[in-house]
Amino acid sequence: KTLEDVLKEKGVITEEDYKAVTRSKSLDYKLGEGFVFTSPDEKFRTAIGSSFQIRYAFMDLDNANNTTANKAQDSSRFELRRIKLFFNGYAFTRDLAFKLVLNFANSQNPPTTTGLLEETWMNYRLLDEAQLRFGQDKVQFGRQFITSSTALQFVDLSVVTIAFVPGYDTGLMIHGKIAGGLVNYNVAGYGGLGQNTFRTTSDNAFAARLTVNPFGDVKYSESDVEYSRKPLVSLGADFFRDTVNGSETNNLNFFGSKGWYGIGNPLLSAARRISTGEAIDFNTAGIDAVFKWLGCSAQGEYFIGQADGQTTKNTLRAQGFYTQAGYFVIPKKLEFAARYAYLDPNRDVADDHWIETTGAISWYINDHNLKLVADYTNIHKQKGISFNNGPNATDDRQVRFQAQMVF
Amino acid sequence: KTLEDVLKEKGVITEEDYKAVTRSKSLDYKLGEGFVFTSPDEKFRTAIGSSFQIRYAFMDLDNANNTTANKAQDSSRFELRRIKLFFNGYAFTRDLAFKLVLNFANSQNPPTTTGLLEETWMNYRLLDEAQLRFGQDKVQFGRQFITSSTALQFVDLSVVTIAFVPGYDTGLMIHGKIAGGLVNYNVAGYGGLGQNTFRTTSDNAFAARLTVNPFGDVKYSESDVEYSRKPLVSLGADFFRDTVNGSETNNLNFFGSKGWYGIGNPLLSAARRISTGEAIDFNTAGIDAVFKWLGCSAQGEYFIGQADGQTTKNTLRAQGFYTQAGYFVIPKKLEFAARYAYLDPNRDVADDHWIETTGAISWYINDHNLKLVADYTNIHKQKGISFNNGPNATDDRQVRFQAQMVF
Amino acid sequence: KTLEDVLKEKGVITEEDYKAVTRSKSLDYKLGEGFVFTSPDEKFRTAIGSSFQIRYAFMDLDNANNTTANKAQDSSRFELRRIKLFFNGYAFTRDLAFKLVLNFANSQNPPTTTGLLEETWMNYRLLDEAQLRFGQDKVQFGRQFITSSTALQFVDLSVVTIAFVPGYDTGLMIHGKIAGGLVNYNVAGYGGLGQNTFRTTSDNAFAARLTVNPFGDVKYSESDVEYSRKPLVSLGADFFRDTVNGSETNNLNFFGSKGWYGIGNPLLSAARRISTGEAIDFNTAGIDAVFKWLGCSAQGEYFIGQADGQTTKNTLRAQGFYTQAGYFVIPKKLEFAARYAYLDPNRDVADDHWIETTGAISWYINDHNLKLVADYTNIHKQKGISFNNGPNATDDRQVRFQAQMVF
Repeated sequence: KTLEDVLKEKGVITEEDYKAVTRSKSLDYKLGEGFVFTSPDEKFRTAIGSSFQIRYAFMDLDNANNTTANKAQDSSRFELRRIKLFFNGYAFTRDLAFKLVLNFANSQNPPTTTGLLEETWMNYRLLDEAQLRFGQDKVQFGRQFITSSTALQFVDLSVVTIAFVPGYDTGLMIHGKIAGGLVNYNVAGYGGLGQNTFRTTSDNAFAARLTVNPFGDVKYSESDVEYSRKPLVSLGADFFRDTVNGSETNNLNFFGSKGWYGIGNPLLSAARRISTGEAIDFNTAGIDAVFKWLGCSAQGEYFIGQADGQTTKNTLRAQGFYTQAGYFVIPKKLEFAARYAYLDPNRDVADDHWIETTGAISWYINDHNLKLVADYTNIHKQKGISFNNGPNATDDRQVRFQAQMVF
Repeated sequence: KTLEDVLKEKGVITEEDYKAVTRSKSLDYKLGEGFVFTSPDEKFRTAIGSSFQIRYAFMDLDNANNTTANKAQDSSRFELRRIKLFFNGYAFTRDLAFKLVLNFANSQNPPTTTGLLEETWMNYRLLDEAQLRFGQDKVQFGRQFITSSTALQFVDLSVVTIAFVPGYDTGLMIHGKIAGGLVNYNVAGYGGLGQNTFRTTSDNAFAARLTVNPFGDVKYSESDVEYSRKPLVSLGADFFRDTVNGSETNNLNFFGSKGWYGIGNPLLSAARRISTGEAIDFNTAGIDAVFKWLGCSAQGEYFIGQADGQTTKNTLRAQGFYTQAGYFVIPKKLEFAARYAYLDPNRDVADDHWIETTGAISWYINDHNLKLVADYTNIHKQKGISFNNGPNATDDRQVRFQAQMVF
Repeated sequence: KTLEDVLKEKGVITEEDYKAVTRSKSLDYKLGEGFVFTSPDEKFRTAIGSSFQIRYAFMDLDNANNTTANKAQDSSRFELRRIKLFFNGYAFTRDLAFKLVLNFANSQNPPTTTGLLEETWMNYRLLDEAQLRFGQDKVQFGRQFITSSTALQFVDLSVVTIAFVPGYDTGLMIHGKIAGGLVNYNVAGYGGLGQNTFRTTSDNAFAARLTVNPFGDVKYSESDVEYSRKPLVSLGADFFRDTVNGSETNNLNFFGSKGWYGIGNPLLSAARRISTGEAIDFNTAGIDAVFKWLGCSAQGEYFIGQADGQTTKNTLRAQGFYTQAGYFVIPKKLEFAARYAYLDPNRDVADDHWIETTGAISWYINDHNLKLVADYTNIHKQKGISFNNGPNATDDRQVRFQAQMVF
């Protein structure tokens, strides 16, 4: 019982007073955001929250070559997958919002290069339809990637999302919500080298994304844990282009060892390969759709990418898609879900497909804020990209269990 | 004077109301924990605190070989030893506790591999007697190590504790407090590679610890700064086993340059040595005891460790102990303490003993929360492990001064 | 409207009560410091704030040698320049202050060696005139460097300041404010290796600084955004000496690639150069002056430095100065400013001058707490230090835009 409650009961303050003084509490708590502090003049607000993703994963690698030297090493792994502190709110005016997300799980041994900062921006709202964001953000490419990692349907992102998205980057974005969210758009220029990595050349990146939500705004959150009474549909399309010097330090997802470029380019013969030193033009595009109704949800996304070496004139082309669906057998609590993900990192060579089939069971104790997720994945790699690169395709099996808390 | 005080004085609210509204303040401060925030529905609580250990240390190295090339380099060192932010509380229910500790002093030049995260877990209490903890924690091995580094009797841990404990690790622990703390137990599985380091193989570690407190629960805190009116006794025993691939990246204390394995294994002849590439089984055990009464305190701990190379079948055996005692000449304020620590990193070779004798004087301004500690240590290393490895034993002398603040 | 307001209006509490209960709010907000939490007994206070400096910079390098191999690479760079969380307040008593500043922009790709911690100290005030500070702080050398990076007149520090200051270091400082700030002094011993870098030798550093403020205390803040009604003048002088082993890991500004020693020493012929392995004595000194009145401000600083190799007896001498002035064409809102900076990293060789001429325009939306700054710089480097070291001098042109928010 608060002091305000007591005073209202005693009639010291009126119902109206009560509403006025409790309307904007200087200290409050909001699910999914954490403790919320508001300045007396209401010009400043900061929410401080935290999220933990703690995981156990067992990976049973397929020993296609099981001589001692070539034996694949299974792994039994406890992991602090994502440990974040996040600060969000507004400052000076409600129209000037900020966000600061720190992921301390990026401080690991051996060291990673991603840095601790994730979203780190200020956003000025002129109108809902016209807003300006300056700083580091998720590059708005790939619906699943844009979705918070705490609002996924499975233990983690699909292999295809990881392979195609650029990741985080620093830049300037114009974005807006039209007709109350029926249409959302954003157009942005970025440095072009990824998370916490800043340009030393004059090449930059460009990204644009458009979503249409015919039945009203659909937020970026997987699973229909809300048990939507009316059907929700969202359609999206995005485009990203960038020029990267092959030898430039970068943190671009698609460029690295799990990216379509990182996997696909080495598969080309030496003569047709894009070389390490040259400048490379990247063009990628994607389309996506989501549907939610009465605890049912379905989502799919298709990506296409092309890399062109400026010096060698060599080209790499890739594509991939995933599709996933879930159903709550106990509404808002217990969900079963399945996903099929297909990645072709190099469309011009054979035997390089990567196919993941995943089944998940999730117990949502408090929406996405407190949940336990377990999933099983069969990872099929054709022989060109399998363990030790052949001679056979491999089927690795992965079991993951994750406890997630957003508080 | 708070508003609640004024309203009670004026009789606007009753004594009962006063108690009700102040019982759980939304914003409070708790010594040793920091500012405490509670959500209006009392389902969420977070305390945000901080600790500083700022140190000056002078090390006078014994120049057993003082040619220019072999001259030991004394050091005069100002140091940010431990600079932490800690978040602890509960979320969704009082039974779901969490802890998050960030040590920013780990971000140094030259870079360390430990990472910033220390304790990072969620803990579910089914009963006091049966609790489940998932995440990164201190491996519950070594009473002194389990004790907070802000609740030590000397400036830092004993050399023996550092040499034998695994350190932090990520895993799953079952633990409980039986009969109000007369017996405490924990049993855990860990990744097995130490702080912020996650497995890429399927080897894991196991740890168990049991403490018996015949006169009631004894918290992990050195010195009798509380001036216990009745005697307190605690007895403990712990066991840890792990398999580490010699070439695997790890952050295990006992494996590194200050660990019994790191010091002891190179002392063996090449033929008897455990090799870098092989898998190694580690078994370590310890027993410990503590006594506190009227400002007096005494504590001791004995460790034994064995490493077995799976390929070479070579074995390394080590042991060590420390014993320390303190007395408050001014109760709760001024304490004198002494410690003797003995490490034999390799029981099968001669001349490798490391013996530290330390005397400390501490001024507790506000318990362990605000204190100044100075200590002097004689570091005797037999010639096998002395500076430049012989030909003589060395006696280094170290003076340390530390200001500590927990707030 | 707060509960206190309502109760005062209704006459439930008196004007006096109102003042008493609102005097020290447990939760408050303070511009430039963030949310302020005070414990019920008022013995503990912590303010948690944040600052963002988000920047876009275009660098047009002068292609004095524009063959393909020697072509200077222009850069178009979005950057998270400084992203900080800061905690400051007092603990246990108002006389024991602390500060903790974390700069997460230091966690970048490629990794930097500076570490995350900036100011990290406790400060005990015996008297205003005699205070003791222990921990890491800005070495009190160089007025512009001592000034918060959020209170500068341009987008960033002058090239001369960066070249001459040591940076942050850990140590013990005695300081005080005499006659209400007419004179301020500080004398300190530091480790001597810079930010988050701790000594492994017994060499240490010494620094002293004195300021005289004839018309009253002048805080460290550039621009006369306050529109001072009466003229403000401050004069300062500082001295720093240090011994660094050339091969010792350090984070000293003057030693690195942008420091006078780092630039100047390689310009000497091999025989006269200070060698990498030897111990080097550094002595630097500076004088500075600032004037502010009715929106006008002017500031200047002159530095001199000398390095002496202990083994080779070789010597390097450097000097530099900057002078800058600004005027608010719209008081407190819109300012124009200009700066001239001159660096001679080696007084004993010719053709090594570095001259930067900068013009800035700043829009102070809320003092230094929310402002937009744009500046243009001509960077003239004589041929000895120009791109590819000659054969010609180069004039690089740099445009920077920065949004800054302190909240």
